[in-house]
Order: sequence, then structure tokens, then C-alpha cells
Amino acid sequence: MMPTGKPKIVIVGSGFGGLAAAKALHGSAADVTLIDRTNHHLFQPLLYQVATAALSPADIATANRVLLRGSPNVRVLMAEATGVDASAREVLLADGRRLAYDYLILATGAAYSFFGNDAWRPHARVLKSLDDALAIRAALLDAFERAEQSNDPAEVRKLLTFAIVGGGPTGVEMAGTIAELARTTLARDFTYIDPRQARVVLCEAGGRLLAAFDPALSAYADEALEALGVEVRLGKAVQEIDANGLTVGDDRIDAGAVLWCAGTQARPAARWLGVEAARNGAVKVRPDCSVPGHPEVFAIGDVASYDSGSGHPLPGLAPVAKQQGAYVGRLLAARIAGRAEPSAFRYRDYGTMAVIGRSRAVAVLAGLKLKGFLAWLAWSLVHLMLMVDFRSRLSVYINWSWAWFTYGRGARLLMGEPGRAASDP
Amino acid sequence: MMPTGKPKIVIVGSGFGGLAAAKALHGSAADVTLIDRTNHHLFQPLLYQVATAALSPADIATANRVLLRGSPNVRVLMAEATGVDASAREVLLADGRRLAYDYLILATGAAYSFFGNDAWRPHARVLKSLDDALAIRAALLDAFERAEQSNDPAEVRKLLTFAIVGGGPTGVEMAGTIAELARTTLARDFTYIDPRQARVVLCEAGGRLLAAFDPALSAYADEALEALGVEVRLGKAVQEIDANGLTVGDDRIDAGAVLWCAGTQARPAARWLGVEAARNGAVKVRPDCSVPGHPEVFAIGDVASYDSGSGHPLPGLAPVAKQQGAYVGRLLAARIAGRAEPSAFRYRDYGTMAVIGRSRAVAVLAGLKLKGFLAWLAWSLVHLMLMVDFRSRLSVYINWSWAWFTYGRGARLLMGEPGRAASDP
Repeated sequence: MMPTGKPKIVIVGSGFGGLAAAKALHGSAADVTLIDRTNHHLFQPLLYQVATAALSPADIATANRVLLRGSPNVRVLMAEATGVDASAREVLLADGRRLAYDYLILATGAAYSFFGNDAWRPHARVLKSLDDALAIRAALLDAFERAEQSNDPAEVRKLLTFAIVGGGPTGVEMAGTIAELARTTLARDFTYIDPRQARVVLCEAGGRLLAAFDPALSAYADEALEALGVEVRLGKAVQEIDANGLTVGDDRIDAGAVLWCAGTQARPAARWLGVEAARNGAVKVRPDCSVPGHPEVFAIGDVASYDSGSGHPLPGLAPVAKQQGAYVGRLLAARIAGRAEPSAFRYRDYGTMAVIGRSRAVAVLAGLKLKGFLAWLAWSLVHLMLMVDFRSRLSVYINWSWAWFTYGRGARLLMGEPGRAASDP
Repeated sequence: MMPTGKPKIVIVGSGFGGLAAAKALHGSAADVTLIDRTNHHLFQPLLYQVATAALSPADIATANRVLLRGSPNVRVLMAEATGVDASAREVLLADGRRLAYDYLILATGAAYSFFGNDAWRPHARVLKSLDDALAIRAALLDAFERAEQSNDPAEVRKLLTFAIVGGGPTGVEMAGTIAELARTTLARDFTYIDPRQARVVLCEAGGRLLAAFDPALSAYADEALEALGVEVRLGKAVQEIDANGLTVGDDRIDAGAVLWCAGTQARPAARWLGVEAARNGAVKVRPDCSVPGHPEVFAIGDVASYDSGSGHPLPGLAPVAKQQGAYVGRLLAARIAGRAEPSAFRYRDYGTMAVIGRSRAVAVLAGLKLKGFLAWLAWSLVHLMLMVDFRSRLSVYINWSWAWFTYGRGARLLMGEPGRAASDP
């Protein structure tokens, strides 16, 4: 490490939380190291658009070194953390090295969980990384190409059936966008198949879509998806996922691709530290986001379970991670400088939204419930504003405008191996 | 096939030649099938910019179905051709199917050749497909990340040495762009290494770079590359490429990545047909681009060797392929319609160019020799004009403007597995 004698802060994870913490520590009297397995910050809320060929990876991802170029006290390290030795105050890296810290900020996020059904994993695709998104894109486009070449109607029907498990925002977004891809972008492009016949099935075990939203908005999302041709199946749990499709309740659905958007599990930070975890594996943190028994270790974002006093932990949303990261960064900067520390973290809920398709969304903004075009407009503006750099913003804006007016998809590229498995362990 | 009773034309390859042929057959009284292993047309001249993180795959590739959407008599088939049964008039596909034709246009292009040294292949990267470009990009970015984490000066020096074999346009473009990447884009982004110390070595066995150009332009390219910090080594052949670098003449160069831009070999169409091939494996074609002994079979672009009367075959350039494709398309449309056929193919040489880096290029345009900024401007304009669709043109223009003013690289993303081998067999 940099032998400056300054306190060493290690941040693990360059998602919304880790990046916000690093930015808040800009110019502080600390040597900061930001570790991530990848070399980039990923704007996760738009990852589904890379998976559905509307955007390119470079539109929603920016190199961490570019984002932190102006902060000489922040070092970027592309490496995988595999554990923490809390008594030695060291982070363990996959290549055997150890990284000493005075303060540690864990922002490792969550991964998709199959809730114990790991046999399903090889047959279902998840959407967490850029590699996942490109694999889903290749699988979707490949299904249409293979269907075009098949003489067997049953096989065509299977190939053009896309099943999405999980009716949260990601599931709703994927279902709506795949239906649009088939019904507009690809509609006129094949000789033997009619892509508009593609079947998109959205399966949600609970009683309604978007359970975190108001029931009226859930009902609107349901209607809007049905209008796009999506089959919405509520109230039945997935029994089985195999190489040929899935079983939902008593119904068998043969499918060309199954996307798993159903539930996440925090990455194993609680186990690393040997501390109490919530049901989803997240570290139960104190009001200042520190880990009980380890006042020098903090957990933020999806890997933390923060009780806001309502009895419910804060949701796994980008704004929560971002605000917690900025808070912990400010807190440590103050502590190191000997200034007064901020009081307990408080989440400011500016709203939540989910997009359903071209021109449709639902949103709760400042207590106001919005749906339809106005919600979609709000969603577009908010997401453009949230992007971390001007270049991405410009590129996404142009791609969106293009797609909106032409119904085209600029990134309709089949690359690599459509059969390869999801990268997320 | 489409049972219309119309003549069946099969085009193998959706590069510049195959696409031009398909477009020229738009609206003709033929059922046309365009086969390609990928789903897209690739603008190869800018592939090196994807490899060096300046552009995204979607900027230079467009789905064949989108490009040919307006031609109902042209069918697109994503499949790999593995041979031709000329007596049965059928194309053999990798999955065992056979595709009948009345006329066949072979536009399968060329692949990089190691001239019998196939043991070098696992250790050198080539640049033919989008997957190749992303693998090179990952290898380049990964070398800097690994160097940043190394404590061994010899290893750092090796990791930051990039050797390029072959002083033709692609080698010159890659060498100049990698040098710029290290000296501008990445220069300020690391803590322990100075990317400006990266060593870029361009090895050419012949006596000068860009042998197809005027010697004065070759000399300029040499100077311009040296000014960018590239080591140019002329007149010494590569003796060996292994996992740790290469041997050129008597010199050993340990390198983090070796890029092979040295020579190509036509894909095996001549062997498929059992006809005479030129030294590079290309089919020796007649003045109308047809294959001797097979008047219903045509070969165009890099897979064809066309004697323009000068004793030299036409060079393996995009404009040659494009003009031959358009010519054969027009010829067949006329033949089928019973109209007068065009006379022998004639290549119109509008010029050739090679870019050396930001603001520098060499060009021969309408007999005029250009170098420096003017040549670069001409290069930029010509390449923007040549792109097949407006969307790509807009996107490339914006990315270039951004990079030009900021020295940034929008696509600095490490994805997938930097270690994976090149896709080109």
C-alpha cells in the first residue's frame, strides 16, 4: 500500500454504494483503495436494455479509473475479494494477497438466488453483469434465427417461447421489452416465422406484479403487459426448471429461454465476518452502517440490512446504496479529520419506478403515483440524470431517441457463444 | 427453399462483397439466400477501433436482416457453409443440411494465416471478427491492470510490451492506436505504473511499412509512428512466437500480447470446388468473376484472385469486394431477365488509405498522395460515408468527436475472459 502513514480505507465493490463512498472520500486525509472484480462501474438499472439489444455495454458502463481519475488519494484495484480477516484487519484476495485496512467498507451487493434449487441454475439465465446481458441477448436473437430454420412447428413454438420468472421491476422490464422486440423490431425481418407469434410468459409466485408498489400501479402494469402480448401468470410458484423449459404450478411451459429475475441473496460478507445476517444473507448493520462488534467495518447497499425503524429493512435499490455510500464516506472523512461525525444514516426516498415498455411505466415520485406516458417520461429523465458521466448520458439519449422513432435496435448483434452459461456464481 | 420456380441464387458471406451482391439482386426475378456464420455485416476497416476501446461492436456492425429488410426476394440465413457439391449444385451446411442453387456467389473472404507455423496460433491474437476485437481489447486493458499489481519490474516491463507483427495497414493502425491509448487515454489513471512507459513494437519482415503505398508515404508512416513512441523494426522475420513473446531476427522480445497482422489466406473455396488457386489460396476467376469450369459459380472479394491484366491480382480491399459483388449481382439480374449482360469486371481505384493515429494518416486519392492531417480528415470522411447505415454513421461520428476532444475511450471495458483464444480458425 501507499506508505503515507495515513489511515487506510478499503472499499470492496464498485457499484452505486462503493463508488459513492469513494467519491465522498475524495480529498480526505485517507489512502483509499477501491476493489472490484471488474474494471467498471455498471449502471445496473439499464442492464436489461443491453440484454434486449437496445444499448451497448459501453453505454452503461464506465471504467472506474476514469470515474476516479480526479481523486489522487483513491487507488483502483481490479481484484476479487474472497474474505476478510477481521482480527488482522486484512481483506483476502483471490490470488492469495492480503490487503491491510484501518477501515473497511463492504459494498459487494447481491447475486441471484435459486433458493436452494441449484439444479435449475444451468437452465436459467440471470442478469447481473455485462457478460450476463450479452449472453441473454445472444440467446434471444439466436432463438429467432434457429426458429427460422426449423421445419418442426412444435420446436418453433418452443424456441419462440420466453419465460421470465419473477414479477419485480426487472422481470416486468424484461417481459415488456422482449415482447416489444418480437412485435416491432423483429416483426418484418424473417421469411418463415412471424416473430409476432413469440410467446412471452411472466411468472410471479405472489398475488401481483411489482409487489413493492401500490396495488393500483400493479394492476396497471399487468394490463399494460397484457396489451403488449405478455402472458402474466400470478400466484403459482415454479416447480421445476430444466433444459426444455419450466413447470409453473401444474402447467408445463416448453421454452427456448428461461430468465430468472426472482430473488437475490446478499453476497457472503456476513459469513466473512461471522456476524448476524438477515434472511437474505445481508449483514445487519447499526444506525451508522457499521457492523456490530466491528466498529471499523461498514456494510452498505444490497449486502447490508438496515432497519430504518419501520421494522422493514431498506429495499435493495440503487438510491439506498448510493446514499449509504456517500454517508459512510462523509462519516469516515470526518472521523479521520477529527471533525464532528454525522448522526445516524437516514434514507431519503425520492421515489421508485419501473418501466413496462416503450412509453409506459409506473412511478411513485414524492408520494405521487404516476402511470403511463408521464411515468415513462419521468423514468427516462431520472435515469439519464442518474448516469455517472456525460458521455454515457449522450450515448443513451441518442440510442433511445433512435429506437423510439424507428422501433429499431442498434445492438442486434449475435456474438460469442449463445449457449454459454451465466457468469454470475 | 421458396418454391417459386424462380432461379435460386445462394450468396455465401455477408462481408462487403456478399452484401453488395445481395443489394444488387434486390427486386430481381431470383430467390436469393444470403448465408453467414454471424447475424451481421461487419465494417472491417474500423474493427481495430473496437479492439482499442474507441468504438463498440454495435457502432460498426449491423444485423443483415435490418440491412436487407427492404428486399423481400432476399432471404437471410445464419448458418455456416462447409463445402460445395458442385455437381449437385448444393451448398453444404455445418448442420448437415444442403442448400440447392442455380447460381452461387462465394464471398467467404480470408482468414489470418500463420504460414505453416500453426504452433504460434495459441500465442498470437488476430483481428477478423467482433469476438477477436473484444478479446484483444480485454487483453490490452488486462495487461495494464496486471502490471499495476505486480512488484516485479521485469514482469511489468513484459506485460506493458505489445508486439505487432505485420506492417500493412492493420499493423500500422493497431501500433499507432495502442501507443496513443497508453500515452494519452490511460496515462494518468494508475498509481504504480506509468502507462506512457508501455513499449509498442511493430515488426515487419519487408524493407518498409505499407508496402502497397508509395515509398514516401511509407517513410512518413514510419516517422509518424516513431513520434508516437512506436519501435518500428524492419527487414527481420519472426522466428518464433510463444507464450512469453516472440523472437524477431536474433532479438528476443518478451511481450504481454502479440498481435498477428501479417498475412491472410483465402478461405477454402478453391478446395471446395477443386479448382486452381492462387498462392494465397484464392480462386482464380475469369473476367466476369466466374469460376473456370463452373460458369454458374462466382467468387468475389478476398476469396477470389482477379487478374486485372497488370499481372498482379487485385488487392484484398473492401472496395474491390464491394465492386465485384455489385457487378456479379447486376450480371445475374441481367442474365435471369434475359437482358444484355455487362462486359468484364473493371475495378475503379478511388484510392487507398491507412490511418496512423489521432490526426495522422496516409492516403492516395485520385492519384494524389496525401499525408498528415489532411489525409486523416479524408480518411475520416470516407469511412463515415462508407458505413452502411445512418445509425452507425451517427454513432461513430459522436464517438470519434468525443475521443478527439477528450482523448478518452468510451469503451474501456474488460468483459469476458481476457485469456480466451481468438475465434478465427
